[in-house]
Amino acid sequence: MTAYPEFEATRALFYLPSDVLYFDGNSLGPQPLAVRNRMRCVVEEEWADQLIRGWVGAHWMDQPTLLGDRVGALIGAEPGTVTMGDTLSIKIFQLLSAALQEQPARKIVLSDTGNFPTDLYMAEGLLKHVHTDHTLKLIDPADIESNLDESVAALLITHVDYRSGRMHNMQRITARCRDLGIPVVWDLAHSAGAVKVELQRWGVDYAAGCTYKYLNAGPGAPAFVYVSKQKQAGIEPILSGWLGHQQPFDFESGYVPGTGIERMRIGTPPVLSFAAVEAALGVWDGISIDRLRARSVELSELFIAQVTQHIDELTLASPMNSDERGSQVSFRFEHGYAAIQALIHQHGMIGDFRAPDIMRFAITPLYMNEQDVIAGVTALRQVFKHRQWDNPDYRIRAPVT
Amino acid sequence: MTAYPEFEATRALFYLPSDVLYFDGNSLGPQPLAVRNRMRCVVEEEWADQLIRGWVGAHWMDQPTLLGDRVGALIGAEPGTVTMGDTLSIKIFQLLSAALQEQPARKIVLSDTGNFPTDLYMAEGLLKHVHTDHTLKLIDPADIESNLDESVAALLITHVDYRSGRMHNMQRITARCRDLGIPVVWDLAHSAGAVKVELQRWGVDYAAGCTYKYLNAGPGAPAFVYVSKQKQAGIEPILSGWLGHQQPFDFESGYVPGTGIERMRIGTPPVLSFAAVEAALGVWDGISIDRLRARSVELSELFIAQVTQHIDELTLASPMNSDERGSQVSFRFEHGYAAIQALIHQHGMIGDFRAPDIMRFAITPLYMNEQDVIAGVTALRQVFKHRQWDNPDYRIRAPVT
Repeated sequence: MTAYPEFEATRALFYLPSDVLYFDGNSLGPQPLAVRNRMRCVVEEEWADQLIRGWVGAHWMDQPTLLGDRVGALIGAEPGTVTMGDTLSIKIFQLLSAALQEQPARKIVLSDTGNFPTDLYMAEGLLKHVHTDHTLKLIDPADIESNLDESVAALLITHVDYRSGRMHNMQRITARCRDLGIPVVWDLAHSAGAVKVELQRWGVDYAAGCTYKYLNAGPGAPAFVYVSKQKQAGIEPILSGWLGHQQPFDFESGYVPGTGIERMRIGTPPVLSFAAVEAALGVWDGISIDRLRARSVELSELFIAQVTQHIDELTLASPMNSDERGSQVSFRFEHGYAAIQALIHQHGMIGDFRAPDIMRFAITPLYMNEQDVIAGVTALRQVFKHRQWDNPDYRIRAPVT
Repeated sequence: MTAYPEFEATRALFYLPSDVLYFDGNSLGPQPLAVRNRMRCVVEEEWADQLIRGWVGAHWMDQPTLLGDRVGALIGAEPGTVTMGDTLSIKIFQLLSAALQEQPARKIVLSDTGNFPTDLYMAEGLLKHVHTDHTLKLIDPADIESNLDESVAALLITHVDYRSGRMHNMQRITARCRDLGIPVVWDLAHSAGAVKVELQRWGVDYAAGCTYKYLNAGPGAPAFVYVSKQKQAGIEPILSGWLGHQQPFDFESGYVPGTGIERMRIGTPPVLSFAAVEAALGVWDGISIDRLRARSVELSELFIAQVTQHIDELTLASPMNSDERGSQVSFRFEHGYAAIQALIHQHGMIGDFRAPDIMRFAITPLYMNEQDVIAGVTALRQVFKHRQWDNPDYRIRAPVT
């Protein structure tokens, strides 16, 4: 093991409940302690005392793009290419609409079954109502590269699969699509703050992601959206809200799209939620994504090696090759739901389950170290040694995200 | 003046800065004190300790519809017809898309110049991308009723004008449109918590509004959306996000719209923002909207009478007849922007300005009484007696919402 003193430092910046082993940062990140004071400030000082003056005085109106640039720095986006707001679903809708403006003669929207469902649902709504002569073609993730050709109007693709952690090769797919004139919309929900992403260097034009997973900005935190400088001016926004207008405060009756990435804004920003984003991003000051990624691979490999060595019932569902894996490790197990319940209720180890049989565990170097990984393996071994998953109470499924 | 002891009680539930006379509750409501503890709880207990378990354990996932019903009670909506999320711009887009599914052979979307610009912008985006053979016909608010006929595919209309406070007759317009088969989308941004609205009794089918004005839920708080029971099942959502799916946690690749109002949900709810909504709605417990409205009219008439008696430079821009006026009073004045700046900076009286010459003042009985109104009039009289608006520093316009 290499020494990573910076991650012992970032670990101290989080509130981690003492009775919990948290392996679910790919669903909801834990709380950076700085969020607490920031939330008190925005509520008890800014909103309370500044009232309406806070839009200018506390920079509420500028937050989406100021914080967008800070998120952009973590994914290789140049300043002025990222803004924030709404939800990832909405941002995917905006981007796919923009992408489909590029090749109107082509009628196939390509995606894969590893995409997160809401991306597919939003695409379905866009095709049903707007691009009624287009078809959404859904294929196996492994077949994406062999299905790229000049019939494809746009590729809609999630970088890291939310179930298996399998990671597409963003650089290679983007380059291949560029040659074929295929605009690509990348979903970075499980990438931002988790793996190496170089949007500008790899020539990515459209991407979006959320901030409540590896960016730890709190439940339902705003999404981010990226459009390369080259593509911004060509977009006719379908969701043409007032804060994407060139001059929102002139209150004119006709829409004129704003300059650059601003046209991807829609409505009034959720200021309280943005305060948490701001505080949560502070954890990243001085952190190298390359070192974060190296540490993630190291901890993931330790976890995989220990689990596969000691627990026969679990089959690795993630790629063995770390170049093809995000920052999570998944295993298949027939009674995976019950096993996760046993882990949570008997060991305080929080991972999660995805149908039909996936047990997911996030690896999050900002606040996780070798001791945590070993403790997680120990909990898993107990669950299987004592067949704790074989408890009828753990078979009753309740919804989780 | 009548006695309204309940509003002296609600006034005590707000934090009102001692150096401010607040007449801007139609832009951003002041802070209900209960928000503070609720925000600490959601941040420092729910998110921090429950982590991902909060989605079920702290009812985060149910907030949009649970709180929607509480907003619904303030606007005459029956349970199960209101849900929350996103921004008003997005909700208007969803509703107008739904409304235009009703009369596909008609090609005119009617609206008026008193509509808030983002509603018109969102309509423009919808027509440019989806209903390309439709026309947005924009007329004077006074001409709406005479322009209703069977060529109109949908009427998109704001109940209370954000500049003048002029209020459309919702009941009469809705009934007339029903006779003509015209679906109507009502924007209630300046109505919810401000005036009497009886959505169900008046036969309204589509409405949306925001919660950061008269509902005091904080800057950028989530929007609400209402669809009557009769119309819910017929809607094919254009923004078909996963939380509007029948079974979001089955993660299926095809979209199946959720039952009832649930299909108007889109993405993951902003939990921190919803916590403020929850606390802010507590102020309304036991409040009669009829009495709130009567009190609003009483205070508005006092304000109008005093200002028109004492300040010759100001011309009433709001209707004199209270049946045609919302819960704000507006005046025209050539140097209105500078006069508002003088009020703010020299008297701590916060109203706001809307181009070209409107000075807006919200009347908010929950936390405003006769003494406040008289103090406001006194400040205004000083501004005009001493021509305080005639200060070059006050002529430089900065953006405000």
